[in-house]
Amino acid sequence: MKSGVRVMGVDPGLTRCGLGVVDGSVGRPLSLAASGVVRTAPGSDLAERLLGIERGVESWLDDHAPEAVAVERVFAQHNVSTVMGTAQAGAVAIACAARRGLPVALHTPSEAKAAITGSGRADKAQVQAMVARLLRLDAPPKPADAADAVALAICHIWRGGAQARVAQAQQDFARKVELARQARRTPDPHGR
Amino acid sequence: MKSGVRVMGVDPGLTRCGLGVVDGSVGRPLSLAASGVVRTAPGSDLAERLLGIERGVESWLDDHAPEAVAVERVFAQHNVSTVMGTAQAGAVAIACAARRGLPVALHTPSEAKAAITGSGRADKAQVQAMVARLLRLDAPPKPADAADAVALAICHIWRGGAQARVAQAQQDFARKVELARQARRTPDPHGR
Repeated sequence: MKSGVRVMGVDPGLTRCGLGVVDGSVGRPLSLAASGVVRTAPGSDLAERLLGIERGVESWLDDHAPEAVAVERVFAQHNVSTVMGTAQAGAVAIACAARRGLPVALHTPSEAKAAITGSGRADKAQVQAMVARLLRLDAPPKPADAADAVALAICHIWRGGAQARVAQAQQDFARKVELARQARRTPDPHGR
Repeated sequence: MKSGVRVMGVDPGLTRCGLGVVDGSVGRPLSLAASGVVRTAPGSDLAERLLGIERGVESWLDDHAPEAVAVERVFAQHNVSTVMGTAQAGAVAIACAARRGLPVALHTPSEAKAAITGSGRADKAQVQAMVARLLRLDAPPKPADAADAVALAICHIWRGGAQARVAQAQQDFARKVELARQARRTPDPHGR
C-alpha cells in the first residue's frame, strides 16, 4: 500500500543523471520505490545527450508516476567545469515534469544534507548511510548519483511536510485571531 | 523562392530568448524570414519559465520549419549571474530541435561576431549594423537578443558553408592522392 506522497528526486548530470523515487510522509516510515541513473555518452554531442536525458526521465515518470519532482538547485559558483552540464540536464528534467503538470521543487545540496543528517555540511558517506538507514536498506543506493537523488526526494517529502505544517500553524493562528476579534465584537451575554 | 538552407538561431535566456530565422547559402544574398523573442516573467518559477521557452521555441519551429538550429554556446566563466538561466533555456531549445531530428550546432559569441564582422571582438553595435546590412534591412532586428539570434543563424549558414568547403577540399585532395598512387602503380604504356 502506498503511503503519503510519491516523490522523484533528480540529481542532474549529463554523464550520470541520478533518479530516485520515494514514498512517504512526515512522521511515517519512508519506502524506496526505485533508484538508478540515466547515462549518456560523454563523446556524443550535446543535443543527443539532452535527448537521452529527456527519454530517460520521461520513461521514469511513466513507470513510477511520482506526484512531485525534486531537482537539485544548481549554483554557478561551484564546480565550474561540470556546472553547465548539470544546469542543462536539470532544465530538461524540470521541463519533462512541468509538461505533465507535476509540481517541481528545487532544493540545494545543503538543504538535502540538512534534512537527512541534521547538518548541511555532512559528507557524502554520512548522507548515504542515513539514506540507507531511513529506507531500511542493507546498503545505500548505487551509484552515488542515485543515492543523492533519493536524498533529494526524502528532503522534499520532509520539507514539504514541514512547510505544510508551518502553513497549517499560520492558518490556525489566523483563525484564533479572527475568533478573538469576533468574540470582542460580540456583546457578552453575561455583561462582563 | 527559398534559396539555400533555412537556419534558426537561438540566443538563449529565460527573460528574453532571442530567435531569428534566416534563409541563405554561402556567396548568395541572405534573407530574414523572422526574428523576435520569447519572454517569460522573471517572477514566475523556473519550471513555468522553462515550459514557456519550450512552447515558444516549438511554435517557432512549427511556423518557420528551419532545417537546422544554431544555439549560442554558453561558457560558465563569464556572466555568472545569468549563465545558469542561459544554460537552462538553451538546453530546452536544443532538446526541442533534437526531438524533431533537426541538426543542432553550437557557436560561441566570438565565432558569430567573427563570421559577421570579421572580428571576434566586434562590439554589439558593429554586429547589429552588419546584420542589418547583410539582410538589407533599414535597421537591425529588435530587441538586441533577436539581433544576436539572427547573427548566430548567419554565422551558421556561413560556417556550415565553410566547413562543407573544407570537407570538399579534403575529399578532392584525398582523391588526387589516390589517383597519383594508382598512376604510380600503373605501368607507363610509353615506358617512361
